[in-house]
Amino acid sequence: MATIAPPKDPESDPRVKAVFDDIRTTRGSDFINNVWRYLAFDPSLLAATWAEVKAVMATPTALEPKVKEMIYAAVSIANSCDYCTHSHLAAARAKGMSAEEQADFFRVVASAGKTNHLLNAIRVPVDPVFVMDKE
Amino acid sequence: MATIAPPKDPESDPRVKAVFDDIRTTRGSDFINNVWRYLAFDPSLLAATWAEVKAVMATPTALEPKVKEMIYAAVSIANSCDYCTHSHLAAARAKGMSAEEQADFFRVVASAGKTNHLLNAIRVPVDPVFVMDKE
Amino acid sequence: MATIAPPKDPESDPRVKAVFDDIRTTRGSDFINNVWRYLAFDPSLLAATWAEVKAVMATPTALEPKVKEMIYAAVSIANSCDYCTHSHLAAARAKGMSAEEQADFFRVVASAGKTNHLLNAIRVPVDPVFVMDKE
Amino acid sequence: MATIAPPKDPESDPRVKAVFDDIRTTRGSDFINNVWRYLAFDPSLLAATWAEVKAVMATPTALEPKVKEMIYAAVSIANSCDYCTHSHLAAARAKGMSAEEQADFFRVVASAGKTNHLLNAIRVPVDPVFVMDKE
Amino acid sequence: MATIAPPKDPESDPRVKAVFDDIRTTRGSDFINNVWRYLAFDPSLLAATWAEVKAVMATPTALEPKVKEMIYAAVSIANSCDYCTHSHLAAARAKGMSAEEQADFFRVVASAGKTNHLLNAIRVPVDPVFVMDKE
Amino acid sequence: MATIAPPKDPESDPRVKAVFDDIRTTRGSDFINNVWRYLAFDPSLLAATWAEVKAVMATPTALEPKVKEMIYAAVSIANSCDYCTHSHLAAARAKGMSAEEQADFFRVVASAGKTNHLLNAIRVPVDPVFVMDKE
Repeated sequence: MATIAPPKDPESDPRVKAVFDDIRTTRGSDFINNVWRYLAFDPSLLAATWAEVKAVMATPTALEPKVKEMIYAAVSIANSCDYCTHSHLAAARAKGMSAEEQADFFRVVASAGKTNHLLNAIRVPVDPVFVMDKE
Repeated sequence: MATIAPPKDPESDPRVKAVFDDIRTTRGSDFINNVWRYLAFDPSLLAATWAEVKAVMATPTALEPKVKEMIYAAVSIANSCDYCTHSHLAAARAKGMSAEEQADFFRVVASAGKTNHLLNAIRVPVDPVFVMDKE
Repeated sequence: MATIAPPKDPESDPRVKAVFDDIRTTRGSDFINNVWRYLAFDPSLLAATWAEVKAVMATPTALEPKVKEMIYAAVSIANSCDYCTHSHLAAARAKGMSAEEQADFFRVVASAGKTNHLLNAIRVPVDPVFVMDKE
Repeated sequence: MATIAPPKDPESDPRVKAVFDDIRTTRGSDFINNVWRYLAFDPSLLAATWAEVKAVMATPTALEPKVKEMIYAAVSIANSCDYCTHSHLAAARAKGMSAEEQADFFRVVASAGKTNHLLNAIRVPVDPVFVMDKE
Repeated sequence: MATIAPPKDPESDPRVKAVFDDIRTTRGSDFINNVWRYLAFDPSLLAATWAEVKAVMATPTALEPKVKEMIYAAVSIANSCDYCTHSHLAAARAKGMSAEEQADFFRVVASAGKTNHLLNAIRVPVDPVFVMDKE
Repeated sequence: MATIAPPKDPESDPRVKAVFDDIRTTRGSDFINNVWRYLAFDPSLLAATWAEVKAVMATPTALEPKVKEMIYAAVSIANSCDYCTHSHLAAARAKGMSAEEQADFFRVVASAGKTNHLLNAIRVPVDPVFVMDKE
């Protein structure tokens, strides 16, 4: 049910093969999930998207990988992105999110959805103490 | 610029005072931020909202407090909730989010916003391996 | 802080004057709120927008006017539309929404925001009994 | 296509059985729809979610039940929540929403979606008369 | 999986037949896509929706048809509207959007999604030079 | 009213100066708008964001610059991003969008918002002819 057709034999294009090989090496797994198979319709878009996801999500930075996946999934849920919600919750589990942490995650996301709507309804003014660029 | 008027002297209502006192005790601070001052227009809504936020965000659970605040902020950003974004980023900082972690958080939220739109455009089908309720 | 400049003397254009006169007659009030003053930058867009709002919101139909304003405000809150939230909550009050009903409205909107996020996270399949176009 | 697996025999857990029994009693029906069957994966989340939905939606308050379901559905549509849209429109029909009222509802939701986008594009300033917390 | 049942023989209603005939004439094609078949459940909603889509999208105006379809699709993606994303990308292709333009479109939509989230997180103040209604 | 404080003298950091210089050269203007002044709080985030915006929006590709700005603005409106809506409508005007085209743009965005909500309410199934990845 997609708006583009993925290429039948994506790795016949060496630019695609290079990206798929890097995905396999980075993850230590032969599995290539659908987002990359579909993005292969445009090798430069594929390469740029993977380069960003690798830099942000698969490179050691201040936040631990599991936490980054949960933040990613939280945004995806609020944007009603079906694929992203599934893939980043799966990634969070693969990176160590426990069942208790996932249930906690659902509670936080649900409460945020609730108060976001309540405050967008009441439109409470921001406390000056929260503002970081005041003169 | 709100859609309701907050009460002038909210703590003259004992139900409001009880909530404000519990907020102060829970946080170890005298400061009551605007969301609670405005919600005081309806003491039962105030009490129910605080009870939920306290249970989800201020009670020890599997996820650490700082991480819960970042997840909460991520949802709030995607929903364009001005107050919630400010208050939960401030809470994350108060609970230990470093400057490096905040920059990391912005990168993850931005990349999620990007791929959410890319995948909502392409509408890539979910890989069966991600689905948890298959027969 | 708008992206267009409203005309200084909108009613010097007879097409604008005709719409403003109809707004005044329909509402029984001389007050013209900002949305119409700004839309006057394009008289045909102004006329088409007012014609639709009048037909949907100011013409007797199955739902009572107060309920229609609350439904309109609910959508506006979820879309984080500042102007629309303010104007349609004001309209709901003008059409009889009591303080108790407004508090009720906030509770329903908040709970909807909560479960929307919870179910967009869990992605529960729709029960067949809810589907109206099944073969 | 969910992100969690619902328990096979949910009512073997007495906490789940207590919630399901209360749902049946409250609704006067044996039918338990999927949201509750899936939420049974975490009995405390199930109990808390049902307690809130029961208090807000199934307890007599100022707004009539049918109107509350329409407000709930309006938020769900704007948030693109598939399950919530189906279940709350079904609930509105079960609580008396006529075919004429449903068509009216669609008209209001569509017009709100239209003007929300128009005003988020033009970014019209809020009329001071609509603001309730001005000094 | 819809919330209404489309009529079995929609063109037996002369109001529906008139709209379908106009759709066929306007497009020079016998194909009637699902949105119109479903909206036929309410002939006046069908007629009003088609009249607006025809006036905005199928009538020559300042912007070329292909560009209007891309703008329409961009909004639909951000709103996670499955049907609208598919139908307006198909319409853009039918009106001349090339494969290169579609890939470009995806890049722009993805970058907009990214910076929208980054700026909704940082909440950068609007430069006065961008504001059109300043005094 | 931002969640970070922009650096007072951003160009004292040579990484920031290099980006600002490239912005000035690319645009042929000395003006640096707020988004870049604020992003200077993290020079690597600034450099990566500018590199992407430059590649997607300021490099000749299949779509003309004016059209890309309108697509960008359309997404920004749907996401209720205040800064992005202002800055990309200003950019579209700077790149040749006429007043007639801007009015057209508003009409298309408004109609898309309307039918997005109508179809997210009715949940019409996608016509198979629109789907590009069917077997």
